[in-house]
Amino acid sequence: FDENETEQLAERLEELEPEEIAFALEAMPLEQRLSTWLTLSNEQQIESLTYMRVDARVNIFKQLDTDQLQTLVAEIDVDDLIELLDELPDHIYQYACSRLDLQEKQWLDQALTYDEEQCGRYADHDVLILSKNAKVRDAVRLFTKLEEDAEYQEALFVVDRTGRYVGLLHGIRLLGKPNHLPVVGLIDDEAPVVRGAMDLDEGSDMVARSGYSALAVLDDEDKLLGRLSIGEALENVRRSLESQFMHTAGLGEEEDLFAPVIQSAKRRALWLGINLLTAFLAAWTIGLFEATLQQVVALAVLMPIVASMGGIAGSQTLTLIIRGLALGQITPQTYWTLFRKELSVGAMNGVLWALVIAGTTYLWFGDWIIAAVIAMAIVINISVAALSGVVIPVWLEKAKIDPALSGSVILTTVTDVIGFFAFLGLGSLFLL
Amino acid sequence: FDENETEQLAERLEELEPEEIAFALEAMPLEQRLSTWLTLSNEQQIESLTYMRVDARVNIFKQLDTDQLQTLVAEIDVDDLIELLDELPDHIYQYACSRLDLQEKQWLDQALTYDEEQCGRYADHDVLILSKNAKVRDAVRLFTKLEEDAEYQEALFVVDRTGRYVGLLHGIRLLGKPNHLPVVGLIDDEAPVVRGAMDLDEGSDMVARSGYSALAVLDDEDKLLGRLSIGEALENVRRSLESQFMHTAGLGEEEDLFAPVIQSAKRRALWLGINLLTAFLAAWTIGLFEATLQQVVALAVLMPIVASMGGIAGSQTLTLIIRGLALGQITPQTYWTLFRKELSVGAMNGVLWALVIAGTTYLWFGDWIIAAVIAMAIVINISVAALSGVVIPVWLEKAKIDPALSGSVILTTVTDVIGFFAFLGLGSLFLL
Repeated sequence: FDENETEQLAERLEELEPEEIAFALEAMPLEQRLSTWLTLSNEQQIESLTYMRVDARVNIFKQLDTDQLQTLVAEIDVDDLIELLDELPDHIYQYACSRLDLQEKQWLDQALTYDEEQCGRYADHDVLILSKNAKVRDAVRLFTKLEEDAEYQEALFVVDRTGRYVGLLHGIRLLGKPNHLPVVGLIDDEAPVVRGAMDLDEGSDMVARSGYSALAVLDDEDKLLGRLSIGEALENVRRSLESQFMHTAGLGEEEDLFAPVIQSAKRRALWLGINLLTAFLAAWTIGLFEATLQQVVALAVLMPIVASMGGIAGSQTLTLIIRGLALGQITPQTYWTLFRKELSVGAMNGVLWALVIAGTTYLWFGDWIIAAVIAMAIVINISVAALSGVVIPVWLEKAKIDPALSGSVILTTVTDVIGFFAFLGLGSLFLL
Repeated sequence: FDENETEQLAERLEELEPEEIAFALEAMPLEQRLSTWLTLSNEQQIESLTYMRVDARVNIFKQLDTDQLQTLVAEIDVDDLIELLDELPDHIYQYACSRLDLQEKQWLDQALTYDEEQCGRYADHDVLILSKNAKVRDAVRLFTKLEEDAEYQEALFVVDRTGRYVGLLHGIRLLGKPNHLPVVGLIDDEAPVVRGAMDLDEGSDMVARSGYSALAVLDDEDKLLGRLSIGEALENVRRSLESQFMHTAGLGEEEDLFAPVIQSAKRRALWLGINLLTAFLAAWTIGLFEATLQQVVALAVLMPIVASMGGIAGSQTLTLIIRGLALGQITPQTYWTLFRKELSVGAMNGVLWALVIAGTTYLWFGDWIIAAVIAMAIVINISVAALSGVVIPVWLEKAKIDPALSGSVILTTVTDVIGFFAFLGLGSLFLL
C-alpha cells in the first residue's frame, strides 16, 4: 500500500460501521493499520478500538505518545472507557476519568465492582428509562428522541420509584394506544433478567435464547445497571467459541494476526516449552528400552504409528467432550454413559486398526511376533486414549482449568507414554 | 432417571423455549431423550427438532415408525419442514408436502432453488409485509395483530406494487404519527439486504454487523424471499465456529454426544485411517535409516522430540492462519507479510529451543555431536513447520478444501517426515 491507497481506503472506511472498520484494521499489517487508523475521526478511532481484539488495540496504543492518547480519550464515553481501560496506560486512564461527569463516574465505579468476566462490567448504559407511573405520552416522547442509529433499542426499561427494575415496554405495544393511558398495563414483566454477577457467557446465552433484542442487567437489589443487547451477546458468543478454537494450539482469542515478531515468539515459546517437557517424558519412556531397540530396530521404525493413532483417537474423544462441557451438556448423571460409550468406540476402532496395522507390519517386516506386538499396543493405546479423552477434560473442568487449553497437551503425554511403554514393553517381553 | 423423574422433567420442559428444550434433549442419552421428547406436545416436538443438531434429530427420527412420523408432520409449518426435510424419510416428506397449502408449496419450491449453504434456503417466511402505498393506520393494524411471542419483529417489510422490496418500516417510527399519513416518508431504505444466493455465514455476519434485528432476504429480482433475523444469525455464527473447532479433530459440528457406538465408531474410523496413512509415511521415513538407528540408538530415543516440537510450532501458525482465513482477513497483499512474520517467529523459537534441547541432550547422552545434530534438526523442522502453517491452509482454501478439517493432518505429515528425515539424515552424516 502506498500513501495514495491508504487515503482511498480511509475514505471508504468512513462509510463503514465501527465493527467493520475494526475488522478491516485488524487485517492490515501494523504500520498500515496505524496510518489508516490515524486518518479516522476521534469518534471512529475510539469506536473501532472498542471492537478490536485486545492485542490489536494494544499494538495501536503502544505507538501513540501521551498527547495523542490524551486527545483520544478527552471526550470518551464511559462505556467505551470501561471497554478500553485495561489496555490504557495508567496516567491516561486517570486523565480520562477526570473528564467524566458525575453520573458517568458513578457508572464507572459501579462497573468496576464486577470483574472482566461478569455481565455487570459491560452493561450498556445507553438505555431509555421510564417511570412505572408514566403515561403513554411520556413513553412516546422518549422513543421519538431516540437517535437514528440507535441499535436494538425497541423497548424502554421501566423502573419503580425506588429505581428497581419492573419490566420492558415495547415500542410497538404503544401503537394505537391513547396518550393519557398509564403504561403500567402495557409492561412486559416476563422477559428474563441478566444479573450483574452472572458470567458473560451465561448472560449472552440468556439474551440469545430469550428472543428479545436486549435484556436488563440488574444488581443484587434489582437496580438497573444497564442492558445487554443481542448484538453484544453475539459478539461474546463469537469470542468465546473463537477462544476455544485458538486454545487448542495454546493461543489466545485476542492474538493479533500481525503482532510484532518478538511478541509472538515470546508467547508461543511458552507453549513450546510446556510441550518440550512432555516430549522429553516420551523420550525418557523410550530410553527405558534402549537395549530392546538396539536388537529389534523395527520397533523404532514402528513406534510413531502407535503414538500417533493413540493421539488421534484421544483427541477425537477429547474434542467432543470439551464441546459438551462448554455447552454445559455433561452432567454427573450422564458421565458414566458417555464413558462407556467412548470406551466402546475406542475398543472397536482399536481392534479394527490393530488388525490392519498388524497385517501391514507382517507384509513389511515378515515377522508375526512384531505384528502381534504392535496390534496389542494399538488396542491398549486407543482404548486408553478414549478413556483419557473423557476423564482428562472433566477432571480439568472440576479443577477450574480450561480443558481446551490444557487438555490436548496432557492427553498427548498420556498417549505417548502409554503407547511407547506398551509397544516397547511388549516388544521386550516377546521379542528378546 | 426413572420414569417418575422423566415425567417431572417433561413438566419442567413445558415451561422452556424450544431452543432450551432442544439443548436439554441433546444432553440426554438416547433412550431417555426419546421418552422425554415423546411427552412433548406436537408443536414442541417439531420446534425442538428444528433446533437440534442434525445427528440428534436423525437419532430420534430413526426410532419412530411411519404412523408416528406422519402424525408429527401432519400440521407442520413450511419453515420447519424446510429445516427438517433433509433428514425426513422420503415418503414422510412427500406426505408433509401434500398437507401444505398453495402458498406454502410455493415457498417450499422457492427455498429449494437455493442450496443448504445459502440464505435463500432458510429465509423465514414469518414476515409482516406492507404496501408502499399504505397509511400509518394500516401499519399500526399489522403490528397490533402480531402475536405476543413474535421474535425480532420490530419492523415491517415494505414492498411496491410489483412485489419488489423497498425498505423497512420500524414500529417505533410510527409512534405519534397521524393515522392518515402515508408511510412512504417513514421508510428506512438504508438497511442492507441479504441476497438469497449469499452464503449463510456471509448473510449472518451482515445481519450481526448491521445493528438491525432482522434484514430482508431478496432474490435476483429484488422480490422478498423472507427475512434473516439476528437470532438465526447468532445460531449460524455459533454453528460455523463450533464446526471449525470440531473439524480440528476430524469431527462434524452435528455430531451427537450420545450417538450410538457403531455410528460413532464408523465415523471416527475414517479419520483414524487417514491418519494411519500419514503415520506409515513417517515410519517409512524412519525405515530409511534403520542402519543408523541400529548403531546410534540414542537417535531412536530422541526422534519424537523433533517431530513433536515441529508439530506444535506448525499447529500454532496453522491455527492463527485458519482463523484469519475464516474471518476473511488474509488477502494476497498481506500474505507475504504474514509469511515473513511467521517464518521469523519460527526461526527465533527454533534457535531458542534448539539450544535448550542440545544442552539437555548433552547432559543425557554426553555426546556433543548428537546434541548438535538434534539442534540442527529442530531449527529446520520448526522453520519448515512455520512455513507450512502459512502455506498449507492458504493453498487448501484456494482448492476449496476446508483447512480446519484437513490442515492439521497434512501439516503433521510434513513435520513428521521432514523432522525424521532431517534428524536421522544429519545423524547418518555426522555420527556414522
